[in-house]
Amino acid sequence: MNTELDSVPRRTEEGAAWPRVLIIGGGFAGLEAAKALADAPVRVTLIDRRNHHLFQPLLYQVATAALAPAQIAAPLRQVLAGQRNAEVFLADAKHINLAHRRVVTDDLVFDYDYLIVATGARHSYFGHDEWEQHAPGLKQMSDALEIRQRFLAAFEVAEKATDEAVRDAAMTFVVVGGGPTGVEMAGAIMEIARFSMTENFRRIDPSKARVILLEGGPRLLPSFPEDLSESARRQLEKIGVEVQLGRRVTGVDADGVIVDGQRLAARTVIWAAGNVASPLLKSMIGIELDRAGRAVVKDDLTLPQHPEVFVLGDAANFSHQGGQPLPGTSPVAMQQGRHAAAVICDRLAGREPRPFHFVDKGSMATIGRAKAVAQLFPTVFRRFHLSGLLAWFGWLFIHLLYLVGFRNKVGVLAEWGWAYLTHYRGSRLITRDLEPGSARPRAIEALKFRS
Amino acid sequence: MNTELDSVPRRTEEGAAWPRVLIIGGGFAGLEAAKALADAPVRVTLIDRRNHHLFQPLLYQVATAALAPAQIAAPLRQVLAGQRNAEVFLADAKHINLAHRRVVTDDLVFDYDYLIVATGARHSYFGHDEWEQHAPGLKQMSDALEIRQRFLAAFEVAEKATDEAVRDAAMTFVVVGGGPTGVEMAGAIMEIARFSMTENFRRIDPSKARVILLEGGPRLLPSFPEDLSESARRQLEKIGVEVQLGRRVTGVDADGVIVDGQRLAARTVIWAAGNVASPLLKSMIGIELDRAGRAVVKDDLTLPQHPEVFVLGDAANFSHQGGQPLPGTSPVAMQQGRHAAAVICDRLAGREPRPFHFVDKGSMATIGRAKAVAQLFPTVFRRFHLSGLLAWFGWLFIHLLYLVGFRNKVGVLAEWGWAYLTHYRGSRLITRDLEPGSARPRAIEALKFRS
Repeated sequence: MNTELDSVPRRTEEGAAWPRVLIIGGGFAGLEAAKALADAPVRVTLIDRRNHHLFQPLLYQVATAALAPAQIAAPLRQVLAGQRNAEVFLADAKHINLAHRRVVTDDLVFDYDYLIVATGARHSYFGHDEWEQHAPGLKQMSDALEIRQRFLAAFEVAEKATDEAVRDAAMTFVVVGGGPTGVEMAGAIMEIARFSMTENFRRIDPSKARVILLEGGPRLLPSFPEDLSESARRQLEKIGVEVQLGRRVTGVDADGVIVDGQRLAARTVIWAAGNVASPLLKSMIGIELDRAGRAVVKDDLTLPQHPEVFVLGDAANFSHQGGQPLPGTSPVAMQQGRHAAAVICDRLAGREPRPFHFVDKGSMATIGRAKAVAQLFPTVFRRFHLSGLLAWFGWLFIHLLYLVGFRNKVGVLAEWGWAYLTHYRGSRLITRDLEPGSARPRAIEALKFRS
Repeated sequence: MNTELDSVPRRTEEGAAWPRVLIIGGGFAGLEAAKALADAPVRVTLIDRRNHHLFQPLLYQVATAALAPAQIAAPLRQVLAGQRNAEVFLADAKHINLAHRRVVTDDLVFDYDYLIVATGARHSYFGHDEWEQHAPGLKQMSDALEIRQRFLAAFEVAEKATDEAVRDAAMTFVVVGGGPTGVEMAGAIMEIARFSMTENFRRIDPSKARVILLEGGPRLLPSFPEDLSESARRQLEKIGVEVQLGRRVTGVDADGVIVDGQRLAARTVIWAAGNVASPLLKSMIGIELDRAGRAVVKDDLTLPQHPEVFVLGDAANFSHQGGQPLPGTSPVAMQQGRHAAAVICDRLAGREPRPFHFVDKGSMATIGRAKAVAQLFPTVFRRFHLSGLLAWFGWLFIHLLYLVGFRNKVGVLAEWGWAYLTHYRGSRLITRDLEPGSARPRAIEALKFRS
């Protein structure tokens, strides 16, 4: 235990001889693990590249200007301020050395007795990383701000475009991927276009925006029951979203996407297809990763040969329950975080650790104002499926319930109430320059290939 | 009147033959002018590089994480949504051609019958533009977010620094310039360091942060009466800010500032000294600009030889009242905006335009929780000066009164109420990476020259 930081005195020294639990990542899994260790005789160190925990399920609402960034984020330090055995560092982990039980960050080296890797996932572009600049994904706060910027700028460009093709491309929004993120993004964009900006423009009619949701598989929300997939499609089409199933994107550039060989001209493309786990996992020598880059874990969430190392959440492939890997959702991550903490406590107390068992309370996705789908307690009830208003209220309730921090709950509730009454979107800020000449045709030739 | 946009049909055509008033800039002056023309028989076109009006007097609160960006900004389209004779474009004006009555933007060209130039000012680095990267100023939303990022990151770096010099530099905040912005920034940084983050760190004590306010002249707030300057200094020193008067900054780099030849090591330097008007003014051929780049205007706010062109607010040098140019404050800008609109109406009605007369209702600056200085109605009362709590309540009241949009007023009031009770700062988000190795000494040599 000789990290350099040990030379810097702590103001509140707590159990200097206690085992050191290092947690990489302050998402749902990492933060739950840290909190669950509050009363354990361990020293918890949480490191993250960002200073805040992000309530990712609502990130699409920041991207569509419905919520402000601070409303869905809580400073990690603030969350753990009262937990005296925990400390937080803003640091970017670069390498995990399993043999020496050591994690190297961009400036400091951290030794550990127990390691919890909860580094999440990024979007996967199926080997086409060059698509990312044209079709940003939605994982971090900076992604949401980037998408918001593009989404708002598109209407500005459409309003001042003198060329019809430029205007049409600016008014076309393509969302790639029909999972929950894609469904929620497409619904939210259509809603704001239809209701929140109508009086704001003089030349375009924002409600005429085309929102196209592309899904490669045969149905939306593939992890949901089929009737809810169908209900989601109907609800989306009812508000005007064009849902296209069984469509493969084979190219993305500044002018739009190529779908099954045909060009679809669109200024704004949002990527919600495919995940790949954090590249940090590759630095763990001798560990099996699956095709999505996730570490294959044992039934107690530890790595084979390394009972002191846990991999959780989106970074883990846990296939001991039903054969399929558990999905990368926040309930899985939170339950795994608590379980990892329990296993550490068991070990310290000399008890045999229990295997992890995921309790599925259901899944939900919102489509728009008073529109949603939900599947509740699938292990208890054979079929407890909700659609529409009731599912939407359930969604509201659950999301508020889990949103970290009393203050944020109040703010989000107020914002939603206000938005429901007025359709007002409070966070419509473009904070940087448009690229020059954005209302001009970029390349007339390219735009001719419109589908 | 042949801008390209005339080929694009408007959805709500209003007075196609009416004279066209082009306003560059949606700040206090430009937006007031646009609103004051609501009932005039003119077509108003407002162009801005940003899509929002910014309530600049509260920008320092975004920079210090007290308010969220959306709380002090209102989308220009939303503000003017109900004004049928107005339209808004997001465009960057590049050139004003007075002879052809035409403004060239990055993509479109706008012709005008009347032009209102309200392009504001940027910070001036006295010919040392290379200082800006190390010492950002505070004019736009993006500036505030940049300063917030640096300000929050400094504490993160201090917490993980193993080198004492690095830690000390990270805990030192230098504000250059003792005008209202500098005073408010210095006070706000000290407050948040002392009260809002104390429980959040384990190794540093944020309340030990050094905040140094450097002013070149003999007193703070040079535009205020002397007794209030003195009161501001006392109030700042009471909360722990080091006020240094008569100190000249001769260098700024990544390691801090050089003051009167001595190095002051600081990771965070904020520039609040000196303004220079928008460079767009230079494109107006034959127009007299003063040393700060402002256009010298006639007593009706128009340019000599160009009765159809108004220059307002921070972009204008109006010296017809008391000999000195009016200061670059929001009351001046707003009154000038309304006056320009009135002059246009007078001209259209064949009336003789009246000269502009600024009604000074006073000045105020806040220093921290329950601390402020205010001078009220200086033209009516010889001496109506307030300090402390009463001035602070006055400041709160006035700022809420002028904040655009009912919804923002409620949000800001709630945020302030909450912050007053709890010292909680809601917007403490770092949304991008620290530079790698930020907790390491950058250059040991450079850091030795600490004053």
